[in-house]
Amino acid sequence: MSLDGRSGAGARLGRVAIIGAGQVGTMLGMALVRAGEEAGVEEVALFDHDRSAMRQSLRRGAGHRLLEKQEEALESDTLLLAVPVPDIVKLIDALGAELRPGTALIDTGGAKSVVVEAMQLRVPLSVHAIGGHPMAGGEQPGPAGARPELLAGATFVVTPFRPDPVAVARGRALARAVGARPLEIDAGIHDRVVARTSHLPHVMAFALVAMDSGADNDVTQALTSTSYIGATRVAQSDVDMVAGFLCANSKEVRGALDELLDVLTKIGAALEQEPEALADLLHTARQAPRQV
Amino acid sequence: MSLDGRSGAGARLGRVAIIGAGQVGTMLGMALVRAGEEAGVEEVALFDHDRSAMRQSLRRGAGHRLLEKQEEALESDTLLLAVPVPDIVKLIDALGAELRPGTALIDTGGAKSVVVEAMQLRVPLSVHAIGGHPMAGGEQPGPAGARPELLAGATFVVTPFRPDPVAVARGRALARAVGARPLEIDAGIHDRVVARTSHLPHVMAFALVAMDSGADNDVTQALTSTSYIGATRVAQSDVDMVAGFLCANSKEVRGALDELLDVLTKIGAALEQEPEALADLLHTARQAPRQV
Repeated sequence: MSLDGRSGAGARLGRVAIIGAGQVGTMLGMALVRAGEEAGVEEVALFDHDRSAMRQSLRRGAGHRLLEKQEEALESDTLLLAVPVPDIVKLIDALGAELRPGTALIDTGGAKSVVVEAMQLRVPLSVHAIGGHPMAGGEQPGPAGARPELLAGATFVVTPFRPDPVAVARGRALARAVGARPLEIDAGIHDRVVARTSHLPHVMAFALVAMDSGADNDVTQALTSTSYIGATRVAQSDVDMVAGFLCANSKEVRGALDELLDVLTKIGAALEQEPEALADLLHTARQAPRQV
Repeated sequence: MSLDGRSGAGARLGRVAIIGAGQVGTMLGMALVRAGEEAGVEEVALFDHDRSAMRQSLRRGAGHRLLEKQEEALESDTLLLAVPVPDIVKLIDALGAELRPGTALIDTGGAKSVVVEAMQLRVPLSVHAIGGHPMAGGEQPGPAGARPELLAGATFVVTPFRPDPVAVARGRALARAVGARPLEIDAGIHDRVVARTSHLPHVMAFALVAMDSGADNDVTQALTSTSYIGATRVAQSDVDMVAGFLCANSKEVRGALDELLDVLTKIGAALEQEPEALADLLHTARQAPRQV
């Protein structure tokens, strides 16, 4: 692997392989193809068990070529795992020990502790493994939903778990190559914060759309406020992706959900009081420390 | 009062008075001033106990003149009540019996049953009273937050409660004059549906912002997803307005909240299972009948 003077030793992405040609993999692939040689990207190769999705992703410009077999991804300099979190863990278990020395392994899942634990357990020290989470994307699943423009200025989390400057450099280089801002952070802190800033809003979106208004569809539609639309947009997301990061981060999501149920119960009790008391409670809610 | 051939007998808005120069009153006033004589609006007069807000509203073009005293609003042909719901009920109690025969009385509150009950009780049959709810607005409170362009094509609910074709005609004329689409509907159905399509998302927004991420503000900000931003936008709304409609619709909001807590508890339990089971649950959630 060659060095890139501007980005530090080992930061060059080289030949990139992406396993997973859904919305996230396609979005990253498109951004990397556009970034090209200037960002140290020699080529982008795609693999997905869903061959139709893989071909659609290629047509959208997410790669230079397709891989016939998943194992061909082991030949890459930088391997990106862009599948639901439980499948990321399975891929690390299956492929981790087979990676060539010097390869960088970066995932893109929305929960990081289970991923870096699997990396710690399965990936040899000669491989530069690091957790990653690009915090960008729309709700439409699949290659058609990829919107690489959303990566511009977005946070791209990288979670190192052992001393490996090359892994960090490669993670940061990936983030910058796709136009995002790298944020180096502990996997546990990521999971705790994101449980509240992303995972819980997803849970709430699905809970809201499960409600039955009791009225005709046209009346319900006409009475739908922007507050509802804003809160439920992500309920159109791929359910396997959402269920994947929720279950993979179940401890933190469970804790956040318990806090939420507590607040909702307090607001529910205040509904029976004078509006002034509820207004005070709502006002206090948005004074929470370290809130978003 | 003159007739307007195009809009039907009694539909002409004539001299309009608006009590309440906050975001809603200012938004409607601006739209009515722009609509002008062509929409049957002779003038728009504003009153608010907050004289600074009233002057700011006038400067934004929400009226032709200010009223010195609230009682002067009784001289109007069409009186709009644009204050939080509990204050709407108080105004109806205080002014209802004093309205001149032929006057139209229309409110703009987010809960309708308590309003039409007060109208039924306090407003003589010679006055054309009807409930109203323009479903448009941003989260910034006060005259500065008024965005009349949001009324274009929005639903403007009118809730008749006794046989009065003139009240219905005037309510519809008001909705059309501000660019909205009138929807005639029973107050009770409005309250049941809106509890789920607007009030509950407001409760959830405040509950979400009450969460403490536990991390530094800059880290929390960097990890904030668009799902969070979409779900919490309305937590910046005026707390008196929000507490007002929540308490005024407490029975329906309470019912919707109990349904929500039930769904959230089910999702919480599924977090401990395999992702496939949770994915099934999320998929089922968005198949709810008569959902939004």
